[in-house]
Amino acid sequence: MIQTLCLVGVGLIGGSLALDLRRKGLVREVRGVDRDALNLKDALRLGLIDQGFNTLEEGLRGADWVVFSTPVGSLPGLFTTLQRHYRPEVIYTDTGSTKRDVVRALEAAFGSCPARFVPGHPIAGAECSGARSAQPDLFVGRRVILTPNASTDAQALAAVEGAWRAVGATVSSMDAAHHDEILAATSHLPHVLAFTLTEMLGRQDEQQEIFQYAAGGFRDFTRIASSDPRMWVDICLANREALLPLMAAYQAELGRVMELLEAGREPELLALFAGARDARQRFLEQLER
Amino acid sequence: MIQTLCLVGVGLIGGSLALDLRRKGLVREVRGVDRDALNLKDALRLGLIDQGFNTLEEGLRGADWVVFSTPVGSLPGLFTTLQRHYRPEVIYTDTGSTKRDVVRALEAAFGSCPARFVPGHPIAGAECSGARSAQPDLFVGRRVILTPNASTDAQALAAVEGAWRAVGATVSSMDAAHHDEILAATSHLPHVLAFTLTEMLGRQDEQQEIFQYAAGGFRDFTRIASSDPRMWVDICLANREALLPLMAAYQAELGRVMELLEAGREPELLALFAGARDARQRFLEQLER
Repeated sequence: MIQTLCLVGVGLIGGSLALDLRRKGLVREVRGVDRDALNLKDALRLGLIDQGFNTLEEGLRGADWVVFSTPVGSLPGLFTTLQRHYRPEVIYTDTGSTKRDVVRALEAAFGSCPARFVPGHPIAGAECSGARSAQPDLFVGRRVILTPNASTDAQALAAVEGAWRAVGATVSSMDAAHHDEILAATSHLPHVLAFTLTEMLGRQDEQQEIFQYAAGGFRDFTRIASSDPRMWVDICLANREALLPLMAAYQAELGRVMELLEAGREPELLALFAGARDARQRFLEQLER
Repeated sequence: MIQTLCLVGVGLIGGSLALDLRRKGLVREVRGVDRDALNLKDALRLGLIDQGFNTLEEGLRGADWVVFSTPVGSLPGLFTTLQRHYRPEVIYTDTGSTKRDVVRALEAAFGSCPARFVPGHPIAGAECSGARSAQPDLFVGRRVILTPNASTDAQALAAVEGAWRAVGATVSSMDAAHHDEILAATSHLPHVLAFTLTEMLGRQDEQQEIFQYAAGGFRDFTRIASSDPRMWVDICLANREALLPLMAAYQAELGRVMELLEAGREPELLALFAGARDARQRFLEQLER
């Protein structure tokens, strides 16, 4: 059981984790840290946290567990503060959507990644944000990827794994670079494509009102473009090392499709579209497992 | 009231239209034409049609209304047959997702677009196809675009408008080129982007199993990649005139985003992503109206 959890960033992910740990009697006290005073007020009112603090320094006091759940761009600054207050008996983890940059930020602040810090990423995003978006059972059936390294403390790793399993998630471990490549493909690239398309068509809509003729397919395709822009700029910048080559590959693929369309190459287009449908079927089957 | 409706292509769109016209007592008899005998059997069993035929020639016999609802690629061939059996007292329309090529195919077969043929497009696609995907009330609250020209018969236009309104749709008229530009942006481009991405990632998944770490955002983003490949190759080829410049514009936008990421231009990226979110909000508000 966690005695005192310090939750840094009380949003969808952190708030939902605190909520479920509490509901399952796995945490005694939650100290929330957030620079947004209104969000802290919401979190207190919703019972996600017991006390709210504006600074990390205050929040860390007496905590035996610390979860960083702020946008990844804020972590380097927070880790500098953490380094001054680090206690080796505490367990630390984060929920950032990118992992290489989190490890690098830890290395920058600590010299090397601290043994009791277990970098992690619950794959459970949504297009809503803030304490009010926290929900019970958000992690049931979801994947959590942890990216420990050779010097990660085994007890800390087991504790973090255990907490995620307790709220219903399936936990895997892999190295940070592999995590970032996989997520660049399945999450960051789709987001950047959706943001880019929706922004481009938004400008066109201002000229000639095209959105009124868009339907359900467009709604689903652009859903992720309603995600928090601040958070996603952070993610894309943090993972640009993996994201940029994928964007280039995608541009090249689009170029190939344009050539096929231009030349009227029906069989190749049919093979490509059918390949897409088959691939998505495979994905859906895995999702159901 | 329609006495004898000849439905050419008994799939999601045609089947659902026949179903609703029947349920509302607006059609006496439905003759289904489909080259897929099993699909005709399904349509008979489901009560979408009264009789099934393998050839257009047979289906047209005695019909006072004809709806073409096959993939757009098949229309030129069907119109050649239609031309030999055209009767000026009949009302003709289609449900193709592209309109300029339908008009061109009519012009090729007839010399000019026949006065009693009202080209149309109900914006109500889905990723399922075939008679078994037909459903009641599919068109309630959906948009239907008709693309008549100066010589379209007013009575035929009013009849086609009336039929769509009777099954719950909102009907607009515009010229065929404008229709094709709008749909290229809000439907054809998103489909081609989704097919291209899903096929590319499908190949990557075969190498290193990335799909197991994809979540709900990816499911929604790629939903349209499960659409019928045959139908979508037809649509993309038929509308490549409007689609290719949009694909090029999108590629250029992606290139700009890559440059911004490369250079770490946070404010510009934030403006772009926030612009996307705002644009989608505008779209959602229009959808609710």
